[in-house]
Amino acid sequence: MSGTPSRAAADAMDAADPLAGFRDRFVVDDPDLLYLDGNSLGRLPAATPDAVAAAVREQWGGGLVRSWHSWIDWATRLGDRLAAHVLGARPGEVVVADSTSVNLYKLAAAALDAAPGRGTVVVDAEDFPTDRYVVQGLADQRGLAVREVRSDIDDGLSPDALRAALGTDVGLVVLSAVSYRSGALLDLAAVEALAAGVGARVLWDVSHAAGVVPLDLAGSGASLAVGCTYKYLNGGPGAPAFLYVRQDLQAALRQPIWGWFGQRDQFRMGPAYDPVDGVGRFCVGTPPVLSLAALGPALDLAEEAGLPRLREKSVRQGELVVELAERWLVPLGFRLASPRAASRRGGHVTLEHPDAWRICQALAAGAGIVADHRVPDRLRLGPSPLYTRYVDVWDALERIRDLVAAGGHERFPREPSRVT
Amino acid sequence: MSGTPSRAAADAMDAADPLAGFRDRFVVDDPDLLYLDGNSLGRLPAATPDAVAAAVREQWGGGLVRSWHSWIDWATRLGDRLAAHVLGARPGEVVVADSTSVNLYKLAAAALDAAPGRGTVVVDAEDFPTDRYVVQGLADQRGLAVREVRSDIDDGLSPDALRAALGTDVGLVVLSAVSYRSGALLDLAAVEALAAGVGARVLWDVSHAAGVVPLDLAGSGASLAVGCTYKYLNGGPGAPAFLYVRQDLQAALRQPIWGWFGQRDQFRMGPAYDPVDGVGRFCVGTPPVLSLAALGPALDLAEEAGLPRLREKSVRQGELVVELAERWLVPLGFRLASPRAASRRGGHVTLEHPDAWRICQALAAGAGIVADHRVPDRLRLGPSPLYTRYVDVWDALERIRDLVAAGGHERFPREPSRVT
Repeated sequence: MSGTPSRAAADAMDAADPLAGFRDRFVVDDPDLLYLDGNSLGRLPAATPDAVAAAVREQWGGGLVRSWHSWIDWATRLGDRLAAHVLGARPGEVVVADSTSVNLYKLAAAALDAAPGRGTVVVDAEDFPTDRYVVQGLADQRGLAVREVRSDIDDGLSPDALRAALGTDVGLVVLSAVSYRSGALLDLAAVEALAAGVGARVLWDVSHAAGVVPLDLAGSGASLAVGCTYKYLNGGPGAPAFLYVRQDLQAALRQPIWGWFGQRDQFRMGPAYDPVDGVGRFCVGTPPVLSLAALGPALDLAEEAGLPRLREKSVRQGELVVELAERWLVPLGFRLASPRAASRRGGHVTLEHPDAWRICQALAAGAGIVADHRVPDRLRLGPSPLYTRYVDVWDALERIRDLVAAGGHERFPREPSRVT
Repeated sequence: MSGTPSRAAADAMDAADPLAGFRDRFVVDDPDLLYLDGNSLGRLPAATPDAVAAAVREQWGGGLVRSWHSWIDWATRLGDRLAAHVLGARPGEVVVADSTSVNLYKLAAAALDAAPGRGTVVVDAEDFPTDRYVVQGLADQRGLAVREVRSDIDDGLSPDALRAALGTDVGLVVLSAVSYRSGALLDLAAVEALAAGVGARVLWDVSHAAGVVPLDLAGSGASLAVGCTYKYLNGGPGAPAFLYVRQDLQAALRQPIWGWFGQRDQFRMGPAYDPVDGVGRFCVGTPPVLSLAALGPALDLAEEAGLPRLREKSVRQGELVVELAERWLVPLGFRLASPRAASRRGGHVTLEHPDAWRICQALAAGAGIVADHRVPDRLRLGPSPLYTRYVDVWDALERIRDLVAAGGHERFPREPSRVT
């Protein structure tokens, strides 16, 4: 390991950063706030307030119901943009709809219906809660077995662990491309190849990857994916989610929630459900237009920056977090709880500390840092390459060091569930 | 029948209207536009742009992820407001979530799971498409029979028709309180009593009633209901929907989509799905906050006006539509396609005319009237008592009369599917 990176070195990285100008395309009210929670809710793009206001004021207020002529295809247009620039999918394979949880349910149910006789669903015991719960609910309803494969809590899913969980009884495997807790990044193509070996389909949750890790769903052989748009894609709180269904599978899959937004010739209002041919058959009800309106300007930024450049900067920022944490924070009781190799991490870096909860509160209350806490005892640091500067990363790590070294977190209450 | 109501009479009704002042609480860009499509998408409340802008700019842009401390209970707070002022339900019985279609799916599935051995679902062949499709999908997946009861296309569902469809094989009946096509209003308590006689549960879609017809879900003995907020409630395009589950049923019902927003102690992220005790267990994923932000100011208006006054004005406006239509439009080939008695109509009045499609296009293009067309050959006129004036109704009927009498619609293309 070379010497500790200096603040001047971080400054120099910003000066040389081809994406540096994107920070000015976001709203930053408090320049002293170090926002390292882009992995949870991305910042507000500067162009978004006007885009939402136009949807409210001109389109709804002025155009009234007539604006549905425009709104009606927003979900597929936004889906095609995500496909082309974020997900590595083809036109007509992605649509924006519902929440990630509901989309996961729809695609998991559709995949299970298409695999009769396979009575097992494989899910990662380390996966994001809603993914596990959705699978539990489907298995409960259909009398399927849930087989848990357990990722290493810090290092992610090993090929051996996955291989051991796979068999010809497996109808579906649900996995996250990037772990919400550790940030561990899976090799999608390798997982797909393993699953294909036993004829199982994989349903990917790419929520923590989309917008920060270039995805190549088509090239990886992926069949099915869902994800959210409010993390690195900066689509806003609870922004509508997306789903991906590979083109050759669309006609054969029938999702369980038969709604009028999936219906062919929707306004004929015919007697029987007859879904459209394309990915639109995975839509259900009327989409929340005002929330959709925030997605356009958010995608503009990701497209303009480009995922390869975003990933390159994200990797360098992750390395800076790790290097400074190793120098400054490990001596204070922290431990890296993410894969060490940048190639195996997504956009966030996770640290473990027995007082992570109190530290997280103290950082927000007194140190001007927004990061987040995850059970057990994890502090997640999520630089977002569109707006986080290298010097922000450097300053954040320094502030964390100084706070914990001085015991500044000890006056904060312990984690609620740990009080007893 | 007395004489044709004069424009002066309509003016006088406006002058005496206790709700007249509410019109100024809405955005009205074009004072000459007669907007009679509040049954489809309500107008923009004047307070809404600022409320949405605050959610975007201050809460998201400034507060960032920390604003979830406020957002996290918006869905239940808004639900309680709907319960108290719009739906006649108790606190903790209503929550805002997802789309109407997805909510219908969740509650229908939960009700069917709670009625094992009852292999039939009754649905109205005249019901709104998404309601029928959701039921078809559930029946298809579970091997249930769908029994269609057929409302009269103009007059709604008769007790005899419903009685004939009910039996002890029926696990669930799905009905709309107000028909999207004819506007026919059902007597909820009477339907509940009939269904209770065979031990069947009713799932109500109250989308076309909410905000214009006072509902008394608790008093009617209703178990389950869903509905949208973008029609007479003016929540905005695709505004999040709501669901109602009577308190004593909540613990016993388990909906199929097990998501983290229904989970007890959500951020413990525990291994197994363990839903909260209340109506929150029917939530699934992260709600679209920017769209939710538009609901508050919309509900302010409905609450302040009060549903009894809204209904009273809506009934008088409906009567004015019918009276003028009988005088002016029936001689031109129109026919009333709604129940004649105001007590059996919701907020909109439907007219049938063989050229309804072209007339609807011509009204929008040249007569400054936004109404809507529904198959087959229906023109729906939906005054919304919060912002439609009596004189608007009068002017609209006069303009329709003059347009059709002059053949002004004949230069417009025929309905696309009728061209062949």
